[in-house]
Amino acid sequence: MSAVSAPAPVRRVAIELGERSYPIDVGNGLLGQAATWSALPQASCALIVTNDVVGPLYGGRMAEVLRTRYRQVHTVVLPDGEQHKDWQTLNLIFDALLRHACDRQTVIVALGGGVVGDMAGFAAASYMRGVPFVQVPTTLLAQVDSSVGGKTAINHPLGKNMIGAFYQPQQVVCDLDTLQTLPARELSAGLAEVIKYGPILDMEFLAWIEGNIDALMARDPAALAHAVVRSCELKAWVVGQDERESGLRAILNFGHTFGHAIEAGLGYGAWLHGEAVGCGMVMAALLSQRLGGVDAAFVRRLHDLIRKAGLPVKGPRLGAERYLELMRVDKKAQAGEIKFVVIDRPGHASVTGAPDALVRDVIEQCCE
Amino acid sequence: MSAVSAPAPVRRVAIELGERSYPIDVGNGLLGQAATWSALPQASCALIVTNDVVGPLYGGRMAEVLRTRYRQVHTVVLPDGEQHKDWQTLNLIFDALLRHACDRQTVIVALGGGVVGDMAGFAAASYMRGVPFVQVPTTLLAQVDSSVGGKTAINHPLGKNMIGAFYQPQQVVCDLDTLQTLPARELSAGLAEVIKYGPILDMEFLAWIEGNIDALMARDPAALAHAVVRSCELKAWVVGQDERESGLRAILNFGHTFGHAIEAGLGYGAWLHGEAVGCGMVMAALLSQRLGGVDAAFVRRLHDLIRKAGLPVKGPRLGAERYLELMRVDKKAQAGEIKFVVIDRPGHASVTGAPDALVRDVIEQCCE
Repeated sequence: MSAVSAPAPVRRVAIELGERSYPIDVGNGLLGQAATWSALPQASCALIVTNDVVGPLYGGRMAEVLRTRYRQVHTVVLPDGEQHKDWQTLNLIFDALLRHACDRQTVIVALGGGVVGDMAGFAAASYMRGVPFVQVPTTLLAQVDSSVGGKTAINHPLGKNMIGAFYQPQQVVCDLDTLQTLPARELSAGLAEVIKYGPILDMEFLAWIEGNIDALMARDPAALAHAVVRSCELKAWVVGQDERESGLRAILNFGHTFGHAIEAGLGYGAWLHGEAVGCGMVMAALLSQRLGGVDAAFVRRLHDLIRKAGLPVKGPRLGAERYLELMRVDKKAQAGEIKFVVIDRPGHASVTGAPDALVRDVIEQCCE
Repeated sequence: MSAVSAPAPVRRVAIELGERSYPIDVGNGLLGQAATWSALPQASCALIVTNDVVGPLYGGRMAEVLRTRYRQVHTVVLPDGEQHKDWQTLNLIFDALLRHACDRQTVIVALGGGVVGDMAGFAAASYMRGVPFVQVPTTLLAQVDSSVGGKTAINHPLGKNMIGAFYQPQQVVCDLDTLQTLPARELSAGLAEVIKYGPILDMEFLAWIEGNIDALMARDPAALAHAVVRSCELKAWVVGQDERESGLRAILNFGHTFGHAIEAGLGYGAWLHGEAVGCGMVMAALLSQRLGGVDAAFVRRLHDLIRKAGLPVKGPRLGAERYLELMRVDKKAQAGEIKFVVIDRPGHASVTGAPDALVRDVIEQCCE
């Protein structure tokens, strides 16, 4: 293990959404400290939703600390993986809630990565038409992206995240210690979403990531703390202006139109979401260049950083037509026209259509 | 057929919920008139959700008029009945939306009774995290209750309406003509929810219903128009003050705690929801008397009106303990304490707990 810096102090990012505002706390060892949870709502019951990988690592500690606040603390353990982000698995949460006669004050705690957060969040949004909800993201991807902003969903055989809700948590707790147990592949997947914020919003942050990519890959706590805090700040700024994705918020999907096609084309779970987004950003950068927003050097720079983060930079050969077909059912599509997030100048993004021929060309060039 | 009055003029009730405000139009023959739909949002696609009873009667006319506004108009026909208000049936809607590549501007139109409205509404709330939604209630119960106020849900084997969302429609259209084809049993079920508004909010309206119960049972258009409009006004007033049922709104569940136990105890679909609520109101009135809110004459008056509306006034013999057990998992229960809506003085209701012994006594007295 490489030499790492001392634990960073606890930092708080505020998500400002009027009566739906909430704090994100970022720091080391937060999960097991009673003080972390002192603002949670009163209730008689809490339900921890986790998976069979994270549960054994942190479920016991989480349950113990919640028992100081709630008379009943139950845990439901979901199978791990995007391929289980479906109704059958979601229903395990409802079964547990009803079996334990959990009332509508029950606090649902999502302990795990993006899949756990999406499912626990949608369960919280839907159980008795809405119960309080807390996110404890244990992956880098969930800490910097999926646990911020209130998007929850499950997949449908015909499309990813097609069934869900906008539903804000009461609190998000990013315990950086949990990143030390993360598999290398998932660390890289999380870095994809960290990198994303640079080209669309903050070129200074992009330069910082380039200068600290080795420290991030070595899980240096101070570097991880800055990456998580800055990513959450940038996402908070966007979500605060457009909670329900009617405009600006769509730029957070940079790389996701191509990425979702990769995930759907290979079958959910073959590539991690962050891996597909990493590769999708290379494709979206090339499309941005072809549309005149950035130059070849910019594309090369992003390509190299994504590669250094341990992410794929070449797409799978699904065939250009299959990519187009899959992208036409993307949620951002309108009346069958595919919408792409492109960089129109470094640090600034917009949503646009593009001629099929040009998109085909970009796909051919980016697939091995 | 008895002599009936002339069609009533179109009347509009405004539901005031800030940016989620919407109108309820009440009148004869509205469904097939293009003018009724002139304020609907622009989109390329509309999906009519109906059932196998209402679809054959009004689905064709509805599709025809929507085709003047939307390029694609699809219809999904659900099996009729409360026993189908589950995930499997809900998924038929998602399947249709995705099979037709419907985008997130798609307008979902619920054409049917409360079950269709609840399912189409929850599908609209959840598809791509929310698409526009219109209610065209074709039963009296849906016109006066379930289509007003944004409650949507499906059932779970362990509880009714346990999974859902608060989600407001863009518009509600109550075409009184559809009530002429309603089975007698469903007309009575709807009258239960009309009667409900009297004891909890408006004794003048209760007196009006008593004076017009024969006209209502004979489906006189002017009488039905007044019953629908006044019910919607009263519900709008309550929902406008408490959209998410954190307080006042709970009084609309008068009769529902006992009613839900009857429905769950007999198996969903054995009694209609309105039948269970009718009987539940008799039980709740007796409980109110025992708690000192009303006198025996008031209970007798409500009992007689419910009977005249063709509704059951005696509960099924499930046993008092089974009633209590079923009511403890009701959404209104808190930490296992059952909450009842009681009349604390004529025209005024509140939510309260009650000693088990007293509730047992009321159940014994009201069951045959």
